[in-house]
Amino acid sequence: MREFNIGIIGLGNIGLEVYKNIKKNSSDIKKKTGFKLNILKVSAKNLRKKRGIKIPNKLLEKNYLEIIKNPKINIVVELIGGADGIAKKVVFDSIKNKKHVVTANKALIAKHGDQLSILAEKNGVNLLFEAAVGGGIPIIRSIKQGLIANKLHHIYGILNGTTNYILTEMEKRNLNFKDVLKDAQKLGYAEANPTADVDGHDAAAKISILSSIGFGTKIINNGFLVEGIRKIEIEDIKFAKDLGYKIKLLAISERLGKYIKQRVHPCLIPINLDVANIDNVTNAIVVDGNPIGRTIYEGPGAGKGPTSSAVISDITSIMLGNDEFSFGLSPSAKKNVHLFNFNNHISKYYIRFLTKDVPGVLSTITSNLAKNKISVANLIQEPSNNGNANVMLITHFSKESNIQRVLKNLNKQKKLFKKIVMIRVRDLKKL
Amino acid sequence: MREFNIGIIGLGNIGLEVYKNIKKNSSDIKKKTGFKLNILKVSAKNLRKKRGIKIPNKLLEKNYLEIIKNPKINIVVELIGGADGIAKKVVFDSIKNKKHVVTANKALIAKHGDQLSILAEKNGVNLLFEAAVGGGIPIIRSIKQGLIANKLHHIYGILNGTTNYILTEMEKRNLNFKDVLKDAQKLGYAEANPTADVDGHDAAAKISILSSIGFGTKIINNGFLVEGIRKIEIEDIKFAKDLGYKIKLLAISERLGKYIKQRVHPCLIPINLDVANIDNVTNAIVVDGNPIGRTIYEGPGAGKGPTSSAVISDITSIMLGNDEFSFGLSPSAKKNVHLFNFNNHISKYYIRFLTKDVPGVLSTITSNLAKNKISVANLIQEPSNNGNANVMLITHFSKESNIQRVLKNLNKQKKLFKKIVMIRVRDLKKL
Repeated sequence: MREFNIGIIGLGNIGLEVYKNIKKNSSDIKKKTGFKLNILKVSAKNLRKKRGIKIPNKLLEKNYLEIIKNPKINIVVELIGGADGIAKKVVFDSIKNKKHVVTANKALIAKHGDQLSILAEKNGVNLLFEAAVGGGIPIIRSIKQGLIANKLHHIYGILNGTTNYILTEMEKRNLNFKDVLKDAQKLGYAEANPTADVDGHDAAAKISILSSIGFGTKIINNGFLVEGIRKIEIEDIKFAKDLGYKIKLLAISERLGKYIKQRVHPCLIPINLDVANIDNVTNAIVVDGNPIGRTIYEGPGAGKGPTSSAVISDITSIMLGNDEFSFGLSPSAKKNVHLFNFNNHISKYYIRFLTKDVPGVLSTITSNLAKNKISVANLIQEPSNNGNANVMLITHFSKESNIQRVLKNLNKQKKLFKKIVMIRVRDLKKL
Repeated sequence: MREFNIGIIGLGNIGLEVYKNIKKNSSDIKKKTGFKLNILKVSAKNLRKKRGIKIPNKLLEKNYLEIIKNPKINIVVELIGGADGIAKKVVFDSIKNKKHVVTANKALIAKHGDQLSILAEKNGVNLLFEAAVGGGIPIIRSIKQGLIANKLHHIYGILNGTTNYILTEMEKRNLNFKDVLKDAQKLGYAEANPTADVDGHDAAAKISILSSIGFGTKIINNGFLVEGIRKIEIEDIKFAKDLGYKIKLLAISERLGKYIKQRVHPCLIPINLDVANIDNVTNAIVVDGNPIGRTIYEGPGAGKGPTSSAVISDITSIMLGNDEFSFGLSPSAKKNVHLFNFNNHISKYYIRFLTKDVPGVLSTITSNLAKNKISVANLIQEPSNNGNANVMLITHFSKESNIQRVLKNLNKQKKLFKKIVMIRVRDLKKL
């Protein structure tokens, strides 16, 4: 009898769902892989917590270190989360003990993935993390295996469901960021501390992982632009809409010769762009490569069902022995990264100035733009509350460093400007 | 040195592109798989044909039977096409000779796939065909591996690029089917004999394959509804648009208890449905399952680049030993099929009557509908050329058998009706 024994460490929403779905689908898994899959042990911080399901006592393991050391266990499933702490120890030590590891932990992989994949190769085990990016969407597998014959040059998309939900609701219900965030927290779509999502860090970890797999480079996990959506207000969404744009938080990575241009920031995107109508918590990833052209992958970006689907697909991949390299190639073959200097980024820019309605505001804006060689394509001024006004404009193609210089100058003028919001515009002709 | 030797049989557009891309990416393939990939032999009907590329003489093999028998060759790549004839002989005999087989041949797999997968299992080799469905989109791999933990219940999409191109151009350029078809043939998007594409057979073979993989059932390759797009005219597209629909040729398979409801036919789909904006030659496949929910896969559905990408991904899958079962599970575990009786299909129906403008037409239509318990939701009559008129209507939910009875009755009345076009309507609430 060929069989695999796994230990699950972490019994939150995801861990419990993985447990249930393996139990439920065990005969299917056997038919599809030819192997029996046994859950040998599960471990959680609080084993006595009510979980609405009876887990046999002999499966419960108080000390997760026992799972890592258990000689009968082939695969450790880490579902604790966090870039460091216990999760890090579990994954490093499991690999050192020659256990295969499956994890949904994007923060850990983005931070330690290079080191971990070297360690996994050295110990002859697999480290897989499909659930770390795009929830249930089989995006990592598609890039590693389905697109294996391609030279990729562009990966981008909507990788964070929480922010996409917030932006969708702001537009749909004509509300501001803060109000929708509160609702999202109540509904469980956003965490009590929403920083990882709304400030772009979650999307950043995900694009770091995809970029490394797609371009065969070491992981870029710092020094690149990461901006969230806190500053966006309903006025921005409305103005964008009037001009034929939607606002989305995009994670983007491009290969430009030997440079990688990777970043996370909100974008005004044309309403006919492929991801413009990806709403609510849905994720979508666009992958451009040669010879295949463009493929797009879309689905639920989070949630226990989709995540457990991805976790189990990794477990069965290990059972089938089908996934040798964590990042799609031998870690020793990963190229060093030359990060594109983002000051040289060329884009159209949307800028909104919430101004005090005093003389000289428009002239201050326009003269500063002119001095920095930035020309304006659209401009509109509208009254706002309390005697303020919104001046909103979109520039022609401009250089990031020039825009930053203008923003720095004008942000200093507290007497004129109460708030300045800049959002980059994605143009179909020049992304 | 670990290495694999392949023989390519068929050097058309696709075969040549596979050859070129393997040559071009050989060092990448080695890095990603750990194996060297050698093209040992290629064979084509006419080896002397100018192909714009120098293939070394020692690789050229006049008699494809020599490739099938060559003891050094591990994998045979069949790129001839056609459900029977030489392609069939190549694939059957290669497997009998214990060669792995990669093919892009949807007609062959749809017709002989069950038998072939049994033969492959018996001979301990792989038979893979990612390129047979959705061009470069890794849809087969995603369903077999990425969604392995799910119970699927619904697979549908746009699986034929040619017909999608024709429908897109008809709408964009306000032209009729025949005119766009001529252009498409000139541009190479449609074949001289367009039957396989425009009559739905190509999409039918593809949904047969996906349905079998997705639901774990034997292949349904006959006895299901297959309708093409020949009958659709610009009037239908315009009327649909006015009511908020687009017309698309969909291939659909659903699991309803023990029944499979599989079919290919044009549909009026709401403009906010996920595949409504998939235009030109792009394909898109929607997959619903539990626990994952809905995922969507989109990309170029044909062409030498995308197809070669899929063919090479299958070759590397074999090299990595990662894909034991052609249809995702042991052929002996495939369930028998109970095909849903399509007479019991419930849908809204669009019907256009091109009528002679004589008294009694409307009354004949409406009385026939009433007699068959079909009620009308929208109706519009417009004058057409030569003193004719178009009566276009959309029914409320009705039963297929009742609709067919009406169409049969009215089609007999040649004095009143010059043409009757029926297209099923896909409703978001009841697909």
